[in-house]
Amino acid sequence: MTTRIRIGIVGYGNLGRGVETAIGLNPDMELVGVFTRRDPETVETVGQSTRAYPMSDLDRDRDDIDVLILCGGSRSDLPEQSPAQAARYSIVDSYDNHARIPEHFAAVDAAAQQGGTTAVISTGWDPGLFSLNRVFGEAILAQGSTYTFWGRGLSQGHSDAVRRVAGVAAGVQYTLPSEAAIDRVRAGENPDLSTRERHTRECFVVLEDGADADTVRAEIVGMPDYFEPYDTTVHFISAEELARDHQGMPHGGFVIRSGTTSAGTKQVVEYSLALESNPEFTASVLVAYARAAVRMNRAGDVGAKTVYDVAPGLLSPLSPEELRAGYL
Amino acid sequence: MTTRIRIGIVGYGNLGRGVETAIGLNPDMELVGVFTRRDPETVETVGQSTRAYPMSDLDRDRDDIDVLILCGGSRSDLPEQSPAQAARYSIVDSYDNHARIPEHFAAVDAAAQQGGTTAVISTGWDPGLFSLNRVFGEAILAQGSTYTFWGRGLSQGHSDAVRRVAGVAAGVQYTLPSEAAIDRVRAGENPDLSTRERHTRECFVVLEDGADADTVRAEIVGMPDYFEPYDTTVHFISAEELARDHQGMPHGGFVIRSGTTSAGTKQVVEYSLALESNPEFTASVLVAYARAAVRMNRAGDVGAKTVYDVAPGLLSPLSPEELRAGYL
Repeated sequence: MTTRIRIGIVGYGNLGRGVETAIGLNPDMELVGVFTRRDPETVETVGQSTRAYPMSDLDRDRDDIDVLILCGGSRSDLPEQSPAQAARYSIVDSYDNHARIPEHFAAVDAAAQQGGTTAVISTGWDPGLFSLNRVFGEAILAQGSTYTFWGRGLSQGHSDAVRRVAGVAAGVQYTLPSEAAIDRVRAGENPDLSTRERHTRECFVVLEDGADADTVRAEIVGMPDYFEPYDTTVHFISAEELARDHQGMPHGGFVIRSGTTSAGTKQVVEYSLALESNPEFTASVLVAYARAAVRMNRAGDVGAKTVYDVAPGLLSPLSPEELRAGYL
Repeated sequence: MTTRIRIGIVGYGNLGRGVETAIGLNPDMELVGVFTRRDPETVETVGQSTRAYPMSDLDRDRDDIDVLILCGGSRSDLPEQSPAQAARYSIVDSYDNHARIPEHFAAVDAAAQQGGTTAVISTGWDPGLFSLNRVFGEAILAQGSTYTFWGRGLSQGHSDAVRRVAGVAAGVQYTLPSEAAIDRVRAGENPDLSTRERHTRECFVVLEDGADADTVRAEIVGMPDYFEPYDTTVHFISAEELARDHQGMPHGGFVIRSGTTSAGTKQVVEYSLALESNPEFTASVLVAYARAAVRMNRAGDVGAKTVYDVAPGLLSPLSPEELRAGYL
């Protein structure tokens, strides 16, 4: 047995808690601790023995950490934290601001090259596993179309929009992929799909006392950008039903590549996720890429990386010999 | 535009023809020719301008070939051809005798290390893409079960077995995954599934004149190993129907990883293929890995490789910058 991979968690929300739990499922890993901007004394960790440290503790270049998993947000945390930490530690992040990934990559790469670290950015499931499957699909079926559908999943942004409507006491919103659209894609039709045809939206709303359901429904379904371009269903439920049935954070989706390899010969590749907990699954992906980051760093492969640069075998706790003998 | 990747095809059956067609769909590739043990004059290629050469022509270490795609069989061709050609050329093969893959890897690795070539073995979709998804699934969801289902697909071995039954003039056999079993797996039940529960078999048979349908059916469904362990349906059809409806070589299947990330939290990852032509799809995978083999060789990464060793971005004709900007 080789030494276990020693991991630090930076930032401790839903994703950080998911990483803590995921590390516990992987016997080749151990958690050094949680690093937080809050007062460490006030942080309640999932594991009783998990230690919490002030973020500044990372400044002393701790030599008991092989890799940091950064669990902050893409808007303000990661653009600053990922380069700063990559200068001293190998890292994994889930930076998901698609338009700014090249910029983020460049900043992290400069820091990691300087520090001799390995930094896997923008992993998770989208960006991450879905990104991989878009590229596998197009590399293999050069002629065809690629479709990504999301859901059934809880959308935080759309739930917030529902809750801002006058008369709404509480509520959640789910994005649903259109089954009819998916069936057409699976059949190899290569359809052009409008926004309205790809996804529908479903809201579960608790009304304030005296609020008028029809008025609230009309306000929601007509909301520009958020709901107007979609077919939206609004269900009115009690506070008890909301608490009982809508506390999870499910998500998932489909990447489908539909192509032809000769005249009229259809080939369809489909990758799908059905997740009961979005943050726990994302955390599990980050943890697997943390294993790869450490291995690449030990092999001298430094700098910023994405899922496209990581050989899949590096994600597995098994050796190349074991993978060849047991999994091919 | 960099120079195109120059590819030779070794062996020219259904798979070789599929590779020829797939190369035509990839503008960064060109076909040098087909190398065959038959008299090259007698080989009818798909493309009018495709050249056929005697296999022995490869002995003169042609410097106009970047990679060979070996399209022979796993039983007798590849165990001999892959090491022999890897000593001189980078290669890709689809060696699929699972039990002997470690032995094949060792023989090819020795030749490739000696020759300074890069040899990707055992690619295609199973082994290949399905192997990748088994490892992705288990690396990410450490706690769970993995299921592979095959079909709906034409099985050559089972079709041959049907045709050997007395009274059968012609026929084909399809392997079908059990929808009921897949539904249980998708629901996260983690079921133990018997052979009979996983797949069913469906035969389309043309009877010889005067043959008794019930006798033939009983003979087929009771055949040990091939059909007895499965629920088998036998349809009797005319020679015209067989010719009209059963000339394709469809296949496909599912790899499903079903796991939990915390108590009771289910996560399901599914990868599936629905292929109208098994050989053309397999060929498309081999061609993408040929691109990766050439790139790895140019980067000095020599020796035998499997899908586990190949960074996914190497399969794509796009650059790392393009992938990061457009596909993450």
